[in-house]
Amino acid sequence: MNDAPPLLPLLYDDVVRRALVEDLGRAGDVTTDAVVPPDRTARALVVTRAAGRIAGLEPALFAFRLLDPGCRLEVCLRDGSDAEAGAVVARVEATARALLAGERTALNLLGHLSGIATATRDVVARLRGLETHVVDTRKTTPGLRALEKHAVRAGGGSSHRYGLDDAVLIKDNHVVLAGGIAEAVRRVRGRVGHMVKVEVEVETLEQLDEALGAGADAVLLDNMDLPTLREAARRARGRAVTEASGGIRPENVRGVAETGVDLVSLGWLTHSAPALDVALDVTDRS
Amino acid sequence: MNDAPPLLPLLYDDVVRRALVEDLGRAGDVTTDAVVPPDRTARALVVTRAAGRIAGLEPALFAFRLLDPGCRLEVCLRDGSDAEAGAVVARVEATARALLAGERTALNLLGHLSGIATATRDVVARLRGLETHVVDTRKTTPGLRALEKHAVRAGGGSSHRYGLDDAVLIKDNHVVLAGGIAEAVRRVRGRVGHMVKVEVEVETLEQLDEALGAGADAVLLDNMDLPTLREAARRARGRAVTEASGGIRPENVRGVAETGVDLVSLGWLTHSAPALDVALDVTDRS
Amino acid sequence: MNDAPPLLPLLYDDVVRRALVEDLGRAGDVTTDAVVPPDRTARALVVTRAAGRIAGLEPALFAFRLLDPGCRLEVCLRDGSDAEAGAVVARVEATARALLAGERTALNLLGHLSGIATATRDVVARLRGLETHVVDTRKTTPGLRALEKHAVRAGGGSSHRYGLDDAVLIKDNHVVLAGGIAEAVRRVRGRVGHMVKVEVEVETLEQLDEALGAGADAVLLDNMDLPTLREAARRARGRAVTEASGGIRPENVRGVAETGVDLVSLGWLTHSAPALDVALDVTDRS
Amino acid sequence: MNDAPPLLPLLYDDVVRRALVEDLGRAGDVTTDAVVPPDRTARALVVTRAAGRIAGLEPALFAFRLLDPGCRLEVCLRDGSDAEAGAVVARVEATARALLAGERTALNLLGHLSGIATATRDVVARLRGLETHVVDTRKTTPGLRALEKHAVRAGGGSSHRYGLDDAVLIKDNHVVLAGGIAEAVRRVRGRVGHMVKVEVEVETLEQLDEALGAGADAVLLDNMDLPTLREAARRARGRAVTEASGGIRPENVRGVAETGVDLVSLGWLTHSAPALDVALDVTDRS
Amino acid sequence: MNDAPPLLPLLYDDVVRRALVEDLGRAGDVTTDAVVPPDRTARALVVTRAAGRIAGLEPALFAFRLLDPGCRLEVCLRDGSDAEAGAVVARVEATARALLAGERTALNLLGHLSGIATATRDVVARLRGLETHVVDTRKTTPGLRALEKHAVRAGGGSSHRYGLDDAVLIKDNHVVLAGGIAEAVRRVRGRVGHMVKVEVEVETLEQLDEALGAGADAVLLDNMDLPTLREAARRARGRAVTEASGGIRPENVRGVAETGVDLVSLGWLTHSAPALDVALDVTDRS
Amino acid sequence: MNDAPPLLPLLYDDVVRRALVEDLGRAGDVTTDAVVPPDRTARALVVTRAAGRIAGLEPALFAFRLLDPGCRLEVCLRDGSDAEAGAVVARVEATARALLAGERTALNLLGHLSGIATATRDVVARLRGLETHVVDTRKTTPGLRALEKHAVRAGGGSSHRYGLDDAVLIKDNHVVLAGGIAEAVRRVRGRVGHMVKVEVEVETLEQLDEALGAGADAVLLDNMDLPTLREAARRARGRAVTEASGGIRPENVRGVAETGVDLVSLGWLTHSAPALDVALDVTDRS
Repeated sequence: MNDAPPLLPLLYDDVVRRALVEDLGRAGDVTTDAVVPPDRTARALVVTRAAGRIAGLEPALFAFRLLDPGCRLEVCLRDGSDAEAGAVVARVEATARALLAGERTALNLLGHLSGIATATRDVVARLRGLETHVVDTRKTTPGLRALEKHAVRAGGGSSHRYGLDDAVLIKDNHVVLAGGIAEAVRRVRGRVGHMVKVEVEVETLEQLDEALGAGADAVLLDNMDLPTLREAARRARGRAVTEASGGIRPENVRGVAETGVDLVSLGWLTHSAPALDVALDVTDRS
Repeated sequence: MNDAPPLLPLLYDDVVRRALVEDLGRAGDVTTDAVVPPDRTARALVVTRAAGRIAGLEPALFAFRLLDPGCRLEVCLRDGSDAEAGAVVARVEATARALLAGERTALNLLGHLSGIATATRDVVARLRGLETHVVDTRKTTPGLRALEKHAVRAGGGSSHRYGLDDAVLIKDNHVVLAGGIAEAVRRVRGRVGHMVKVEVEVETLEQLDEALGAGADAVLLDNMDLPTLREAARRARGRAVTEASGGIRPENVRGVAETGVDLVSLGWLTHSAPALDVALDVTDRS
Repeated sequence: MNDAPPLLPLLYDDVVRRALVEDLGRAGDVTTDAVVPPDRTARALVVTRAAGRIAGLEPALFAFRLLDPGCRLEVCLRDGSDAEAGAVVARVEATARALLAGERTALNLLGHLSGIATATRDVVARLRGLETHVVDTRKTTPGLRALEKHAVRAGGGSSHRYGLDDAVLIKDNHVVLAGGIAEAVRRVRGRVGHMVKVEVEVETLEQLDEALGAGADAVLLDNMDLPTLREAARRARGRAVTEASGGIRPENVRGVAETGVDLVSLGWLTHSAPALDVALDVTDRS
Repeated sequence: MNDAPPLLPLLYDDVVRRALVEDLGRAGDVTTDAVVPPDRTARALVVTRAAGRIAGLEPALFAFRLLDPGCRLEVCLRDGSDAEAGAVVARVEATARALLAGERTALNLLGHLSGIATATRDVVARLRGLETHVVDTRKTTPGLRALEKHAVRAGGGSSHRYGLDDAVLIKDNHVVLAGGIAEAVRRVRGRVGHMVKVEVEVETLEQLDEALGAGADAVLLDNMDLPTLREAARRARGRAVTEASGGIRPENVRGVAETGVDLVSLGWLTHSAPALDVALDVTDRS
Repeated sequence: MNDAPPLLPLLYDDVVRRALVEDLGRAGDVTTDAVVPPDRTARALVVTRAAGRIAGLEPALFAFRLLDPGCRLEVCLRDGSDAEAGAVVARVEATARALLAGERTALNLLGHLSGIATATRDVVARLRGLETHVVDTRKTTPGLRALEKHAVRAGGGSSHRYGLDDAVLIKDNHVVLAGGIAEAVRRVRGRVGHMVKVEVEVETLEQLDEALGAGADAVLLDNMDLPTLREAARRARGRAVTEASGGIRPENVRGVAETGVDLVSLGWLTHSAPALDVALDVTDRS
Repeated sequence: MNDAPPLLPLLYDDVVRRALVEDLGRAGDVTTDAVVPPDRTARALVVTRAAGRIAGLEPALFAFRLLDPGCRLEVCLRDGSDAEAGAVVARVEATARALLAGERTALNLLGHLSGIATATRDVVARLRGLETHVVDTRKTTPGLRALEKHAVRAGGGSSHRYGLDDAVLIKDNHVVLAGGIAEAVRRVRGRVGHMVKVEVEVETLEQLDEALGAGADAVLLDNMDLPTLREAARRARGRAVTEASGGIRPENVRGVAETGVDLVSLGWLTHSAPALDVALDVTDRS
């Protein structure tokens, strides 16, 4: 289980607020407003309808806090926990209005992020016994990058760079525009600070040698076949971190990892993992 | 093909801007800044790597406009078009910096929304010959509801309500809190305006009869088995629109539709459809 | 009295905050800062100076909460209540700084919205004995639509659509551009979801017949004389909701309603109703 | 006519944008999207339906620019001009979508602000031959203060302070909390800079004398009867600017002004002036 | 000591929040998240490392409140107090995560603003025995004007206008464009309200006479030598406030003040004062 | 000269806009509005009044573009250039209103950032002949971090981490809370991705040895005396980057650098560098 502290609310409060506003629109929850007395309170359970790995529970519950600052929230399964189908993830006590108006926003967040965590967990499980780590990418859903990378970590994966600014990744186009890998690395080293790592994307073993010669901290081995990957991992060992990337899915991930690369990265984790089925059961409506 | 006008940029410009800022962080694209001369321009093609239905092209291209207001954008395949793998979706001419800094944001948007459109198209195709329509839900990704509903339409689906405010959906919890379906409908009719439709979620034929008797405009038939659905569709015909919902996936959608319901709604379209594989090919870097 | 729950603060907190910032500017309340010791508290009454219908009290009081989170607020007359001149609407206990800095913002909101509620109530009163409802329009003050529509409801009126997106209203220009009412309705039905109602604006009985034939849910009878209105109401009865609109003021509203239309809509309620005179009496400044 | 430059768009662009977003909601103009081809352009006239003084035309037209950056806008009657009923205020050429989607926002702004300008003009006209100026207050509509004060100037009125921060107004409560007018003025002078003027609200001639003795730059004569006002104006002449305030309406304004006060201030101008009737006539829809 | 109330949080909360977000980026405090258990609390002292005048303590501490709403904050030295090196300015008890994540933001604010207050205090001290006041300018750091002007006041200085809108300052370019000082003043008086003061920038005694003749409330004596300043102060006495400006630094300020001007203004206070050295000492980490 | 591309406007446009709004307030530039005809255009030069290194010119000029989208801007000295006193940095042609309303915002940005660049350049110059680099810190002005770090680079310095999220810096408090340097490094390596570097702050040679043993990428040598620094640099050579920090000023920086450390970091560059004197000369006001 992931024992890191939960995300600071400052990192996600605007996301949750925007999601609520998106759902409430101009007139708010007209159904509930018409049907439910304003001061009625209720209790509810956040539950899973399928087995999976939990992620995003704190941001999900934050929806209820924004609607009812006096609500009571109890976390039963923290991010990074595994849940059976039917497990109770959290307990909520709030005004009935807040419960019903916040339900969909909370579940959309929790289901989406737990889906990513679950998919990551399953990929990680396929690598049991190997030392290869599972890494995310920048192929995330617009507006949700920090939360989705958090979900990958909750699933046992590890984070690649967060954006274009916190690490260097020299790709094909950069190499062409710079006139070679060595020149691209040289320009980058002359500009970025001492705390920034440099990774180079390579497609052939020749490019790999050039990147290693230029002192890359890491190399992204793009769409190589397994024998080439194996040779690349061998050559780079002790000189640079190796990351296999391109077309990796749960089905083929173990084969890739067995080549000896340090990392496998999967955009699939964040752009295509299905949501986990979660629900809100109102238990006390009296 | 969907021949409606593209979305107004006011409906999505903040989403695109936030996505760019999320990727650029504080320091911007440090790799490109180090490697590429500032006034270099380049041309690129937005292409598909797999076959699918296009959606979200205008918001995707808007990323380049935000980075380089003088860029030239040519739409080749409008939203709602089907593309083969390898199809050219758009042509972009911009500064190389804008192309490289905007690439991931543009592709994340296009891939995500086209994934939804493609999934919808495929579900719609399974209903060929039937009159049942495919409908989305509020189970959307936080922050992207309007774009995702647009993608469902581009896929040939149709829109359910956009939020809690623009239509009434009386659910289980509302019925319990109001003391019955008829009372819930009565309260709602007394509060909402003449332009608001009222749908009632029912789980049994008894509840259906109660909802029809109360004058619901539509009924959501929640998790009914096929024989019950068929009977429900029969009873409601001419009295209310019928929507089957709950656990509907591409595999079982035709069976549900063949019961004669007017609509089938699938949260799956927006919370679990995999992304379409799209890419940016820089064609001219001289 | 309107017994619906008060609006969720998420629907108005930004409006109140912006109004405070607009009043406080960069330097804040320089008079109070110079004159009043920082930890002085005070009590005050929100009172009416004229008789009217209360609306917007919760948003108004929210101004004090934003300035002094520890303030105590007591609602004496909820939205939808009638107040005599001199009535106590609420009691506030807060720091003297918060009271004085928030006073104008709170009163501007309360006076404006209660003015709308009062005007609506008075129009509704003129229709006593008739079944015609009073409806608002989109002729609202920029930035305040949701609050103003809430005020109309507090006055006993009912809501027309909230914006361009939550219902269809086919107007003159749409008809011309589509090439006829029937064609416009057909296009609209093919695009919008099953939860969206369709209203058609008509100026003549011929257009009315065309709209009814096309299956409009409602018809807006624009600027018709009374005999035509009466005939229109007769023809549409049981087929579509009828709404009379155009130039309706308190003086002539009963005559219009007596034609038998279901609804009368008045832009006047939201764009021209005078404010209700309200004040803040500081009762304890020791 | 007011020959000052129009407001800088930075002062109002957010107001216009929020008003558009408020009207467009999540789904945009669904009627127009269904009916009007996306590339259709049209021409329209902004016209008056009643006589009045124009104000707010630039912000109103800005709505069309936000929806169609390529639109062509021609101002026919600048802010501060008088218009007959039926006058052409501006010409607009834009996509039909932008015209129809922006119409209501533009008219709501123009009608509201021209209503204020017209009311101000009419009050100013009642003071013909006198030297008294008409002044606005902080009793403005939340979110629109700068635009409403601009409208008052377009009507021939003059601006009181814009907020709590740009000038001092010592009121009743400040005096009590400070322990007297002289002490309140002393504290204020010790705190605010040399560019800030100080006005004191007084209800009696004794208070007036105290304020004049304390060196107030201006005195607000609150709810005094006409003889008292006349005496107050006499005493203050050459020592402080005199402002009559409280319950002043068009009907009684001339009597107040004839007492010789320098200024009359009317909250009524901004909180209760009815809107001017304006419309958009689409002239070319081919 | 400055005994005015502290600034209202509404005037600075966005500044603090933006500063925190700027420091936390997308991933938050990755060091602390990896090292510190989430529920660990700690105590810390905000201390000075050099002697100076405190300003900005409340906004600085607000950083901890945003990260940990349950934190306990004790102000030991309020804004406007003098502190020795090593003085305890405040005590904070919060989660260790909030303390470590908020530390730099809090110190950056406190150090910057206390630097300005200290510099102002030192300039004020150089004028001991004179009646000249020290005034700030609009040469402030973008985004921090209100806080920096507050810091100047905490240092014993006084505020010039806050922006382009709250007072008139007719400069060289305005005079040329208007065709003379008298004409510029005339145009301004005809446009701005009765609560707005008018200052004129003059470079010669001839211009000064023209400004005084035109009725300026204040004159800015721009870059005059000492004898000219003395003569200017003499001529303006009793007619307008005199402000010496241009190239004034701590070293030469007393000489300028001894000419008898009412005010000396120094952009240096806000654009070039060095920060005060402040630190956070964590005292209890168990 | 720094030949990297200028910053993307997306990285600073909000900063410039907020600065303008801060200066314009609610009423805008009342002086210019009263004096200058609205359609008057003018030309101006951005000039230095003292010698220095230019930084921030693009954001500064952006102020004029926001006020007058049709303005013409010519950059004469790009960021990273050295300017004599009196040098022309840029030429601007715009409406006179935009020039006068944007002047202070533009100059505040340019003066502040060029002050930092100039200070950095001067520190770099003191290290001529040595291989030590000058590095910035997180001691930046709230809201301006990215721009200030850009200014340090324009001055020839290099960037430390941008925030708490893009690199690890294990400080004193982290070590105590983790129970030792080795344990802290171990926890961090287990959590952060492969693209994140780890620096450890050490105060003694023993701590240094521990940090090197734990595999730190860099060590921050905090407040060490020169002999200790020299020994530390010797021990770390080839094993980790060495950064001297604490109390470094222009006066003592060369001595520190001569100990052989790789980097010297100075908070002073961003929190205490005086502004460069820059001005706007309007050259054509006809």
